[in-house]
Amino acid sequence: MRWRGPAYDKNLPMSAGGKLIGVGVGPGDPELMTLKALRALKAADVVAHFAKAGNASRARAIAADHLAPGVTELPLRYPVTTELPRSGAAYCNRIKDFFDACAAEVAAHLDAGRSVAVVCEGDPLFYGSYMHLHARLASRYATEIIAGVTGMSGCWSAAGTPIAQGNDVFTVLPGTLSEPELARRLADADAIVIMKLGRNLAKVRRALDHANRLERAIYVERGTMADAVLMPLVAKRDDDAPYFAVVLVPGWEEHQEPQR
Amino acid sequence: MRWRGPAYDKNLPMSAGGKLIGVGVGPGDPELMTLKALRALKAADVVAHFAKAGNASRARAIAADHLAPGVTELPLRYPVTTELPRSGAAYCNRIKDFFDACAAEVAAHLDAGRSVAVVCEGDPLFYGSYMHLHARLASRYATEIIAGVTGMSGCWSAAGTPIAQGNDVFTVLPGTLSEPELARRLADADAIVIMKLGRNLAKVRRALDHANRLERAIYVERGTMADAVLMPLVAKRDDDAPYFAVVLVPGWEEHQEPQR
Repeated sequence: MRWRGPAYDKNLPMSAGGKLIGVGVGPGDPELMTLKALRALKAADVVAHFAKAGNASRARAIAADHLAPGVTELPLRYPVTTELPRSGAAYCNRIKDFFDACAAEVAAHLDAGRSVAVVCEGDPLFYGSYMHLHARLASRYATEIIAGVTGMSGCWSAAGTPIAQGNDVFTVLPGTLSEPELARRLADADAIVIMKLGRNLAKVRRALDHANRLERAIYVERGTMADAVLMPLVAKRDDDAPYFAVVLVPGWEEHQEPQR
Repeated sequence: MRWRGPAYDKNLPMSAGGKLIGVGVGPGDPELMTLKALRALKAADVVAHFAKAGNASRARAIAADHLAPGVTELPLRYPVTTELPRSGAAYCNRIKDFFDACAAEVAAHLDAGRSVAVVCEGDPLFYGSYMHLHARLASRYATEIIAGVTGMSGCWSAAGTPIAQGNDVFTVLPGTLSEPELARRLADADAIVIMKLGRNLAKVRRALDHANRLERAIYVERGTMADAVLMPLVAKRDDDAPYFAVVLVPGWEEHQEPQR
């Protein structure tokens, strides 16, 4: 099997070098960082963070108050790929080369005996870039993952919306799926989070309507931030949405019989 | 719509009483508590916690070091229901009466102007008992939810297993589903977490095999605790599993083309 983890592959040869640490810093509110994340950031020799070219890292911004003064930072800047079709091999190769280069930069620090904490929005292994470093380095270096509060937990908590309970089937769907595929899956799950809205919101809205799930859908932007936007999706007048907005469809209803 | 949240129903009449706070304390490792959870526990007048009759509360044990000395505690003990069939009305009524009684006890504190923090394993609104209090009280009292690291995040982090990436469809399935239904859903998702194993493990194993997903499945018990058990499910010789064990089926594979 392809899975390799530090807790399982105890017999892998470990480099004498530093440790790679994926540090979940939560959904946006710096207070939703864990004690363990804080400790890891204080102890790390190098703090690495992904960001779009020309943008500040959102993960770094969340963790900013807890970086040790003078700590070495390693910004990892995604390449600009707007000129490449996302389905094409050129795009895939560009991204793959980028993660290879990032892994090499991180490995240079690890080889020198330095610990590298990669700050990650939400949880490191749940739809995050960190896993591309982990996959390239975990067989050669000691690694540790510090779980974080996911963006979706932050959103339903901000909305005060119980999302799933008992024997609910819970599903996360990317808004990039086709409309029929979205509608089919929306009708087949109890509780749903739809991510990657952006220009997909009109399609998502039609699919929710088709699956008869529109009425309870909740639209959330920047769930745990001071400027959060939360409303029933039916109350949202336009289909403008940032890429990181989500739609929540709670499975559990108040009148449902309780289960433990 | 039935959804009611403090961030949305700004015009609801609020009692002048105390505040109800659902405090996620994470998956088990006390260091995976958030700064916000700590602050809420320090400030709360009353700390409430659910537990099985005769058992200590797992959420309270996680939070124990952060309870203010002499804070008022409100233990909420599930009734013993082993004599009742789970599908029957008697069971449902017993549980419903229990949550009604819990809500009344909490409301008495809130009416007296005391803030009540309900400590919750994992995240308060994700398969937790807290939501039964929230549903009964959120229309009458100020409420706040403090998101927490879920048990499943704790498990895949302990295993060092990237779980979902890019356009993966991620699904949480209760092991209580029928074998054909499990097999159908296992074949229809990219990344999967199966909860509520207990006596369902043999059935889950057969469904995974039928859906051709057994090979990469990972079995995890007490993911973030010192006595965690993690292994490929195919390496587990028996079908004994505690109720809270999970099976992870990662969607993402190393050779998969990267997506952001």
